[in-house]
Amino acid sequence: MRRPARIQDVAAAAGVSVTTVSNVLNRPERVNARTVERVRSIIADLDYVPHPGAVGLRAAHARSIGLVLPDIANSFYARIAKGAADAAYRQGYALSLCHSDDDPTREQGYLSMLVEQRTSGVVVAPLSADPGRLERLRRRGVPLVLADRARPTEEGCSVSVDDVAGGALAVRHLLEGGARSVLVVNGARGIRQCADRYQGARQAARRLRGVTLEQVVTERMTVECGAEAVRRLEALPDAVFCTNDFLAAGVCRGLAERGADVPGDVRVVGYGDLDVAGFAALTTVRQPVEELGAAAIELLLDEVEAGADHAHEARVFAPGLVVRETA
Amino acid sequence: MRRPARIQDVAAAAGVSVTTVSNVLNRPERVNARTVERVRSIIADLDYVPHPGAVGLRAAHARSIGLVLPDIANSFYARIAKGAADAAYRQGYALSLCHSDDDPTREQGYLSMLVEQRTSGVVVAPLSADPGRLERLRRRGVPLVLADRARPTEEGCSVSVDDVAGGALAVRHLLEGGARSVLVVNGARGIRQCADRYQGARQAARRLRGVTLEQVVTERMTVECGAEAVRRLEALPDAVFCTNDFLAAGVCRGLAERGADVPGDVRVVGYGDLDVAGFAALTTVRQPVEELGAAAIELLLDEVEAGADHAHEARVFAPGLVVRETA
Repeated sequence: MRRPARIQDVAAAAGVSVTTVSNVLNRPERVNARTVERVRSIIADLDYVPHPGAVGLRAAHARSIGLVLPDIANSFYARIAKGAADAAYRQGYALSLCHSDDDPTREQGYLSMLVEQRTSGVVVAPLSADPGRLERLRRRGVPLVLADRARPTEEGCSVSVDDVAGGALAVRHLLEGGARSVLVVNGARGIRQCADRYQGARQAARRLRGVTLEQVVTERMTVECGAEAVRRLEALPDAVFCTNDFLAAGVCRGLAERGADVPGDVRVVGYGDLDVAGFAALTTVRQPVEELGAAAIELLLDEVEAGADHAHEARVFAPGLVVRETA
Repeated sequence: MRRPARIQDVAAAAGVSVTTVSNVLNRPERVNARTVERVRSIIADLDYVPHPGAVGLRAAHARSIGLVLPDIANSFYARIAKGAADAAYRQGYALSLCHSDDDPTREQGYLSMLVEQRTSGVVVAPLSADPGRLERLRRRGVPLVLADRARPTEEGCSVSVDDVAGGALAVRHLLEGGARSVLVVNGARGIRQCADRYQGARQAARRLRGVTLEQVVTERMTVECGAEAVRRLEALPDAVFCTNDFLAAGVCRGLAERGADVPGDVRVVGYGDLDVAGFAALTTVRQPVEELGAAAIELLLDEVEAGADHAHEARVFAPGLVVRETA
């Protein structure tokens, strides 16, 4: 049997110093990314396993971050996870995936587990905005970044998308195309994102004289509810802004049933740029979700590593318009 | 300031023994799930933080599992992650999410990180089937379960979906509906899943006399390539089986362009039950992906905890047919 590889063997094979190998293991953020990749690949080839007393466990906490998401199978949160996983990998941190199901008890259970395991910090994307629940998260004393929800910087870091700007972007595009009557097909009023997108739509509509903006609230944000909303209309508007892509795909279907041409008779814009948007050729609002996930990790690791030098930040991302065929 | 909570406070508040609280922290699989939830919730409320010397770090390895996926933003892998995260949570393990981008170097880099962090075991879903690469994974000496790929049990545990059965299921449904000429619209021959689904289609077609089965291979497995495949056909078949839902949605679009009614003139079945399948009302094959993810964790933890008593297992799941409007 071969003798186990030592750190010196890794350094020699990679053509770097022992200190660099040690930095790759302990402080990879100080080493350039290509060197980190090369050293890790050689570590793998040589089956080198650093002694636990020498690495990682010497630190007060594990090099790991918790990521708490309400539903990982939802593509919005899956894209946050992708951006977060890439950023954590670049900085040499493991990312602990916690699927909270938007259940506060389970969320707290996960946080207990993460605290027990001496996790460096946590990124949480809460679905509901119960302030008591957010306060309980804060009390745990672990660095915590909120994702997909802005908060005052004195409470900590957050990353979010400007949904007011997204709603305004969508409606401005419809108005620039000549629409004067715009219908907003929206989800429940209690959903923060829906309220923000509608607020943006109203801001854009108010900027131009003679524009009417009406709103229909659907029970759920599904294709079927979008189609049903159109079936119930007495008169068709010039344009429809839907606060997600499923509603928009349904609206297109409902318009087809009524013999209306999209975009000839009615223009339609969706929100989210989900898979269905590509299939239905929807013009839609795209959120930089991977960037959001990556930024959450960056802010968290700054707090973990800079300690007292860290300043909380609320980073807000601007959405963009993807123009396809429906508007 | 309140004095920090002790384990006795948690036990009293939860109405359980100190031993049970300790088991929740160290061996939650021995405690019933409702008790685990309740104790964790009280741990959260009291902000109880167990002493690191007393818990977790005493074990030779962390209570954590690595999950290596080629693309977490792909809904198939996101659903594996969801099933795996739920199963890991139930057993009190953290799940470390590793986004390999299907890059062997990065995959090895992640495995080095997981080995350094004394991870209990790893679930890997490899996209390409390079045997040398799988062998390198095995050599790391960490318990490892392959997901979405079968392997001989002497090499270790695996969980996979029977794609041959899925292909047969789809074509049998088309034949039972009266189709006698079936076209398979397929992805590249090198993709193992595509080859398996086609093999199943052929098995089903051979069972019935007078059936013709032809195959068209597309460059990519997209809506556009599916539509293009139909545009190039000289004569239309009775039915089309597509090896993913994007192709099937494209085939439906191509058939509409040619004035063919689905399912009246041509019946269409897809594969995967992605979001687009619901939108296009596709009859399709659904894989039990969350169950696959959960089973991978169960097999892995059996190997981690049962040690020498563990017997490797290749668990193969049967897909099911979701009947909507296209066949």
